[in-house]
Amino acid sequence: MHTILSSPSKTVTIGSDQPFAIIGERINPTGRKIFSQQLRNGDLSRVEIDVREQAEGGAMLLDVNMGAPLADEAALMTRAVKLIQSLTDLPLVIDSSIVEVLDAGLAAYQGKALVNSVTAEDERLDAILPLVKRYDAAVIGLPNDEAEIPEEPARRLELTRKLIRIATEKYHIAIEDIVIDPLAMPVGADTLHPTRTLETIAMIRDEFGVNMTLGASNVSFGMPDRHTISSAFLPIAMSHGLTSAIMDARTPQAVRSVKAADLVLGRDEWGASWIAGYRARQA
Amino acid sequence: MHTILSSPSKTVTIGSDQPFAIIGERINPTGRKIFSQQLRNGDLSRVEIDVREQAEGGAMLLDVNMGAPLADEAALMTRAVKLIQSLTDLPLVIDSSIVEVLDAGLAAYQGKALVNSVTAEDERLDAILPLVKRYDAAVIGLPNDEAEIPEEPARRLELTRKLIRIATEKYHIAIEDIVIDPLAMPVGADTLHPTRTLETIAMIRDEFGVNMTLGASNVSFGMPDRHTISSAFLPIAMSHGLTSAIMDARTPQAVRSVKAADLVLGRDEWGASWIAGYRARQA
Repeated sequence: MHTILSSPSKTVTIGSDQPFAIIGERINPTGRKIFSQQLRNGDLSRVEIDVREQAEGGAMLLDVNMGAPLADEAALMTRAVKLIQSLTDLPLVIDSSIVEVLDAGLAAYQGKALVNSVTAEDERLDAILPLVKRYDAAVIGLPNDEAEIPEEPARRLELTRKLIRIATEKYHIAIEDIVIDPLAMPVGADTLHPTRTLETIAMIRDEFGVNMTLGASNVSFGMPDRHTISSAFLPIAMSHGLTSAIMDARTPQAVRSVKAADLVLGRDEWGASWIAGYRARQA
Repeated sequence: MHTILSSPSKTVTIGSDQPFAIIGERINPTGRKIFSQQLRNGDLSRVEIDVREQAEGGAMLLDVNMGAPLADEAALMTRAVKLIQSLTDLPLVIDSSIVEVLDAGLAAYQGKALVNSVTAEDERLDAILPLVKRYDAAVIGLPNDEAEIPEEPARRLELTRKLIRIATEKYHIAIEDIVIDPLAMPVGADTLHPTRTLETIAMIRDEFGVNMTLGASNVSFGMPDRHTISSAFLPIAMSHGLTSAIMDARTPQAVRSVKAADLVLGRDEWGASWIAGYRARQA
């Protein structure tokens, strides 16, 4: 199954027969004090560096989150989307928990965007999915609802079923345009969290074959040597059915582990990309 | 299922609920010109460095191969086993294609050794398995026979069945003492090789639940940036059922990827080993 995203001059295909889709996580004020302050002042100057570093590091899409408290997030999102599209041809992921901000981002965006995200809560589905349909976007669905972020893979699968059913049947969104986030939680909080995520990924792949993405940095949150944890977790998740991740695209270790997993999982014919990547680094 | 190996003062348990068993590959003249020449001259002085570097790097067992052409391999194996056991308490893997050399190594060894290896060829089974039984050792079984090194996972599974049947029924070797090598071949020769190995691992795990090991360095043979390939392949293989590898224990990248995989696969309670390993490196 192929999820096809685009900017005016570039198309990116997410799929299990494609190279793993690396979504740069960096344009997001969470955990970035200075950037957060800049956003409150309407200063987007830092974004240019973030775009360049992530594109150079290997990002294939860029997540854009303007979630600064007290800022006019919708206005910021409009400006950010226009600015970023003037700087790069990478397709964007419009990321907000506020419906109006998603709307502003989608209105400003040129191309087919990915919306991050909708939960399986009825109210959220009914607020966000019409937007996704109206802008002919794709959407990341999270299998949690009003009651809980479920731990059990079987329950996450149930909520995935609900999400896909409502998106396709009620809002006539193509199943190819639904990307499920199986929910990755910190291994430091519970060493069984990653196993639950992996089981969820395999179950969703087996039942729906849809594309999946997750916030890779969540897994290693609070632990030392985080990049090595991501670099082991992502290849495993890929072998279970994960086809994309929102991740640190500026870190060679994580990006190269994903490329190596593409290679050993048979998604890099003749190893051509692997060898080309190596040569480019030597040059 | 637990495969328990020992030296006089140390026991190592291989199993899917245990930390991944890292077998140091280094004490082997293959591809080592100087070491090969030293062995031909009966000079074992290099072994001391190999033992120390691998033990410090995280090896839990050490493979010992004295396969130098024209040397008296049986005599060398006897000396090497005695020397190595005087230097380290790590259990050893006695590695040779020559039955008499395995016999010499097992006779010299103090503890329960792992024999590397026996194929599914009748003649080899009948020559090596009696030795394994006599010395109460464990054995690595390779699912290839006279006719072929099979590519198809289903055929490798068939040969695994034969191997396990003959070892347990004819030679009364406990199934816990059989470790299957699912055969890892270079991704550079065929990008589907790793996928076949992974499928084989999953099939053998599902049918027998036995422990498995493989030569991890084979996968990346001939490719650039080999350590990153191993560091992606090993976590995936672990998630499919691999419980051990014969690998480069001197390379922090590969060893740490395995430890990170232990963590995210739920084999490192509270992340205690991960955090302890990090602290030790900072000290």
